[in-house]
Amino acid sequence: MTATPPAPDQHRPGRIMSREMAEQPAVLRRLLTKGAPEIRETARRIAARQPRFVLLTARGTSDNAALYAKYLLEILLGKPCGLTSMSTTTAYGARPDLTDVLVITISQSGGSPDLIDSTRAAREAGAVTLAVTNNPDSPLAAVSEFHIDILAGPERALPATKTYTASLLALYLFVEGLRGVDGTRAAARLPELTEGILARREEVRVLAGRYRFAGRMVLTSRGYGYPTAKEAALKLMETSYIPALSYSGADLLHGPLAMVDNVSPVIAIVTDGRGGRALQPVLERLRDRGADLVVIGPRDQVDLASAGFALPAEQVAEELQPVLEILPLQMLAHEVTLARGQDPDAPRALAKVTETR
Amino acid sequence: MTATPPAPDQHRPGRIMSREMAEQPAVLRRLLTKGAPEIRETARRIAARQPRFVLLTARGTSDNAALYAKYLLEILLGKPCGLTSMSTTTAYGARPDLTDVLVITISQSGGSPDLIDSTRAAREAGAVTLAVTNNPDSPLAAVSEFHIDILAGPERALPATKTYTASLLALYLFVEGLRGVDGTRAAARLPELTEGILARREEVRVLAGRYRFAGRMVLTSRGYGYPTAKEAALKLMETSYIPALSYSGADLLHGPLAMVDNVSPVIAIVTDGRGGRALQPVLERLRDRGADLVVIGPRDQVDLASAGFALPAEQVAEELQPVLEILPLQMLAHEVTLARGQDPDAPRALAKVTETR
Repeated sequence: MTATPPAPDQHRPGRIMSREMAEQPAVLRRLLTKGAPEIRETARRIAARQPRFVLLTARGTSDNAALYAKYLLEILLGKPCGLTSMSTTTAYGARPDLTDVLVITISQSGGSPDLIDSTRAAREAGAVTLAVTNNPDSPLAAVSEFHIDILAGPERALPATKTYTASLLALYLFVEGLRGVDGTRAAARLPELTEGILARREEVRVLAGRYRFAGRMVLTSRGYGYPTAKEAALKLMETSYIPALSYSGADLLHGPLAMVDNVSPVIAIVTDGRGGRALQPVLERLRDRGADLVVIGPRDQVDLASAGFALPAEQVAEELQPVLEILPLQMLAHEVTLARGQDPDAPRALAKVTETR
Repeated sequence: MTATPPAPDQHRPGRIMSREMAEQPAVLRRLLTKGAPEIRETARRIAARQPRFVLLTARGTSDNAALYAKYLLEILLGKPCGLTSMSTTTAYGARPDLTDVLVITISQSGGSPDLIDSTRAAREAGAVTLAVTNNPDSPLAAVSEFHIDILAGPERALPATKTYTASLLALYLFVEGLRGVDGTRAAARLPELTEGILARREEVRVLAGRYRFAGRMVLTSRGYGYPTAKEAALKLMETSYIPALSYSGADLLHGPLAMVDNVSPVIAIVTDGRGGRALQPVLERLRDRGADLVVIGPRDQVDLASAGFALPAEQVAEELQPVLEILPLQMLAHEVTLARGQDPDAPRALAKVTETR
């Protein structure tokens, strides 16, 4: 299952990642049409089981999708949620009582042994289990009671892009389904807006110049944008190897702010909504310190910053903005990596399916 | 409530942090004697309420203590747990049904407005609320149904040290109390072992030389040692400003490993037990890549690494080792910061009570 990165002479660096990013409008469309009815039916059946608590299990990029789902579940559904510390099951053999608990495991490949083991253990412990994967034939899908296919098609570049946005949208449709809402209407414009953002490559190339020689970066946000900050940091690190630290705005003020100065550029993801408003005092502190602040968010927020990338956020519900916010940051990781003379398709040391146990 | 850092001419850099680190044996002793009976009684009363789920709320250093408590609760008690995404309550107004849920809020000062608000909201939503603070007269203690005093005495240095180890021990005694176990016996040797570790300042000074010019650091662990990796990264960042990234060993393999090479030194916290065993494949990968690997853990693990600090771990249950593991890393943050010509007592931009809302 491990994808072999193509030899350098077979392709232009970053071609595979670039192609997969470009597929995102089509993937989102497919989910909204072909995927949505089945997701809604799965949600209906799970809602009938009346779970009281939700645990989310994932690693890497999927863990950031899990965090996004946690916000949805807490805010839209009022369900207490937790992210699983997987080693408590796989290394320590903990067997909690999971009656009334919905355990959602998110994995692009559905092939990581520790995720399969922990899902099997959760099901044995009484949980309702749901796997969200890009592979309906995967062992993870097989051990789970329920399965959602994110329909993203094969992903070959090592940095996950289209499977991330597909996971976000699938999880959104699922959580809306749990409360009996058809999420496709609110999400209908996402494919078109995604196309518009992906076409703005020149803007991102200019931003990328800013980080060509950066020794570190800090990403911050609050609320729905926080998973985007974490996913962008992961993407930047695994492609460009720039140490990229991500903090919720509140946590940034509790310590790491000491590290932010004119040598630590900051990227803030500012949602158009309550998360973005809660971030304002942090942005003020950063501006007061003279930080190099790049904003991904609404035009008026970009205009207050050193630079940025304006999103058509006012047309989209806050809880759906993360699907758009990550796009310029995927493009940024791609462009910065090219600018640094590296190949975004094939980071050192990474295999597509990570066999952690 | 905001502590004013002393003027530079009033003190030798790092004197306050150093003194507070040195108080740790006495603080732990006080908790084991004066604090333990009350903690056990609080635990008994909370256990009688039979909570099914636990949510932990904290920021900064206390958030790492919360993660430690999450491991204890999942492994020793089999309770499903989650760390709170506070903005879902404070920014989005989510009001989940918290019947049967124990909400533990951890805060050194007990004064942060968002923690007070979210605890009040949790109590109104039906949760059993417990505050763990260093200030029984704090507003957080007042709004919580139950309170545990960590008895660490006033903490004046901005980087938290003694309140971290005190929180860990208090949480350990509490979780053991929930299952009717007197934790003081297993923890009895901690104060003496803490003294022994704190006396080894020369060893840490040698290690610190390694990071004087480091542009970044990676910290990793698995299981009970993972909160230590996160806390050490926070401590290093907020004192020395070195970008310090922390990953569970499994997550490190899912992406950030690309960033580890001969310019990214790695510190691994290896517990003597199942967490440390689960970390072995990660340590092998790091050694294969020729990473500069420093191990905090048992002597045989240190001997396999580039360098390290051997802990008397074999004398201590795995779940208590985090109280010891963080000590050389607190000392390291202190020494590296001095070596870089900065003052660990007064990092730029930090206030002792962070007023996030």
